[in-house]
Amino acid sequence: MIRHVVLFTWDDEMTDELERQFAAELTTLSPKLSGLRAYHAGPDAGLVDGNFDFAVVADFDDVASYLAYRDHPEHQDIIARYSRPHATSRAAVQYEL
Amino acid sequence: MIRHVVLFTWDDEMTDELERQFAAELTTLSPKLSGLRAYHAGPDAGLVDGNFDFAVVADFDDVASYLAYRDHPEHQDIIARYSRPHATSRAAVQYEL
Repeated sequence: MIRHVVLFTWDDEMTDELERQFAAELTTLSPKLSGLRAYHAGPDAGLVDGNFDFAVVADFDDVASYLAYRDHPEHQDIIARYSRPHATSRAAVQYEL
Repeated sequence: MIRHVVLFTWDDEMTDELERQFAAELTTLSPKLSGLRAYHAGPDAGLVDGNFDFAVVADFDDVASYLAYRDHPEHQDIIARYSRPHATSRAAVQYEL
């Protein structure tokens, strides 16, 4: 199984409402993905100073399923409308579980 | 449930062997943690250029369990020997599942 993790920081224009829409659209997309085991996207809980603002963790059966998600047209459309215009930094890892 | 996510980049002195030891010590600690549901630490799979080098994702029953892990003396000892001396950047989020 391969886990994809991505964390973002946002610019000042990324409102709570946009963040909710971003999470909701990603979560709505997830049942359409083949080989997906688990998908959780959401904002930082505000427990620790200096954290990033938003996390996505997605577990896939294999690398091919992750790459299909990464390149999925609806995923790319969500990225183009939310994370690309508003991310001031992005940190990602894929690792074997 | 609260999920803790942390990603690191390493300096050149963080060898594969040190990375394996870091993952192994964290994984050995995890059964001692109260309120832990899942714990997975490991190196980036090398699928995508520009990624961070290492990920930890830990799921806890509640915020108190996460904070107990964060401040656990054995956890702090592992941090002091591996991630603090070798991390060139660190990105973290805690979020509600």
